[in-house]
Amino acid sequence: MQHVSQQAYMPQLSIDCVIFGYQAKQLKVLIPKLDLAGEFWTLPSGFVYQYEDIDEAAIRILGDRTGINDIYLEQFRVFGKASRDNGRFIDRLIELNQDKLEKKRQNPTDYEWITKRFISIGFYALVDINKVIPQKTSLDATIDWYDIHELPTMILDHNDIVQEALSTLRRDLDQKLIAYNLLPETFTMKELQQLYEAIYDQPFAANNFPRKILEQNVLERLEKKFTGAANKAPYLYRLRQPSVPDSLVTQ
Amino acid sequence: MQHVSQQAYMPQLSIDCVIFGYQAKQLKVLIPKLDLAGEFWTLPSGFVYQYEDIDEAAIRILGDRTGINDIYLEQFRVFGKASRDNGRFIDRLIELNQDKLEKKRQNPTDYEWITKRFISIGFYALVDINKVIPQKTSLDATIDWYDIHELPTMILDHNDIVQEALSTLRRDLDQKLIAYNLLPETFTMKELQQLYEAIYDQPFAANNFPRKILEQNVLERLEKKFTGAANKAPYLYRLRQPSVPDSLVTQ
Repeated sequence: MQHVSQQAYMPQLSIDCVIFGYQAKQLKVLIPKLDLAGEFWTLPSGFVYQYEDIDEAAIRILGDRTGINDIYLEQFRVFGKASRDNGRFIDRLIELNQDKLEKKRQNPTDYEWITKRFISIGFYALVDINKVIPQKTSLDATIDWYDIHELPTMILDHNDIVQEALSTLRRDLDQKLIAYNLLPETFTMKELQQLYEAIYDQPFAANNFPRKILEQNVLERLEKKFTGAANKAPYLYRLRQPSVPDSLVTQ
Repeated sequence: MQHVSQQAYMPQLSIDCVIFGYQAKQLKVLIPKLDLAGEFWTLPSGFVYQYEDIDEAAIRILGDRTGINDIYLEQFRVFGKASRDNGRFIDRLIELNQDKLEKKRQNPTDYEWITKRFISIGFYALVDINKVIPQKTSLDATIDWYDIHELPTMILDHNDIVQEALSTLRRDLDQKLIAYNLLPETFTMKELQQLYEAIYDQPFAANNFPRKILEQNVLERLEKKFTGAANKAPYLYRLRQPSVPDSLVTQ
């Protein structure tokens, strides 16, 4: 399915990207559907060139499949079960798309390369849906945002990969808010609470949420401007610039 | 350096294990030194068989190199820079140990296999030093606990891997306490604070630490038994059994 020789890539290694989008209080995932018979949905995925850092590969794969080039991506887990092999999936694809893919099976080098066991490095990102225009590639019939509660059934363990990415996103949300660039420069406590509620998929008590979030020390409260009018507008907040994270120092 | 054919392993993939030990308020790392001329320290490392889950491989590698078989291990990051190749390291090893290793270079298949670019999956664990007896293998001249402040210079990016593992350990400490199995069934707030101080390498204010840790909802305070004596003993705590973590559901 690639136009370059498979030999140019690291063998038995793939990258899968989980792109979460936030818009109008809803959390969604960007998922292409292959331009082949059989209704196959997959995460935006690809391989790593021999000369390429894995982080570079993830950015390239995301760019190629979505047209998005400047997203903050983070690796979160390797999916490495021995049972993760592409063989059955590829055979089914070829069976359903003999006109397009039969030459694949006739080329033993490419066929063996792609049907082996793969380990996959999962990357995730969180973007403002309003700021991106997903673009399908020659591989895709469609590429769409799917509500987190209504994901299609994807190939291999791709649905599990989304769940694992979601767990990581929830765990790291407090510290990663600034990297995600999801909020305007200033925002109200209510807007922030709505973002948390979409990602955690649960309501937070309005009398408790501000205290909890302020304790994390990630927010800065701005002084209200004196306007002369009755001062009933809610306080505005902005994100504190973080100190240099450990990962920049050591990686 | 392996007795089995390299072909049995996943190509260009390794696993590196960071084993933190805690004892007497100190944090240490378990590091073998190779039984070869040239003073080479490395993290306990190895490869993944084609038929083997990566988690199984990590447990096997740790067991082979340390004699420890029942440790809670967790993967934390893939080290995947294109510049991570073994070539220079292996050539230097062969140069310094011609008597033992020259046949390695004369076998092109094995030599090419081991000198390629490798990505490495980092796993870390935290153990009670009193509970383990490290054992060296035929590869090791020594295997010892090194204070976190006095680590030897290791090969490749292994020192960076330790720093990255330490960042992850600090981030996850609250939620992973029970898995690490480092504390007796019941313990005082002071003992817990000493553990945190060793891992974060900084003091915590004694009047603030209990409140912070109790807010995490990981501890259960036990009732004092009525002994008739003046009741000056400190409260004892134990760890709450966690609910089923997400990773068990999705992985």
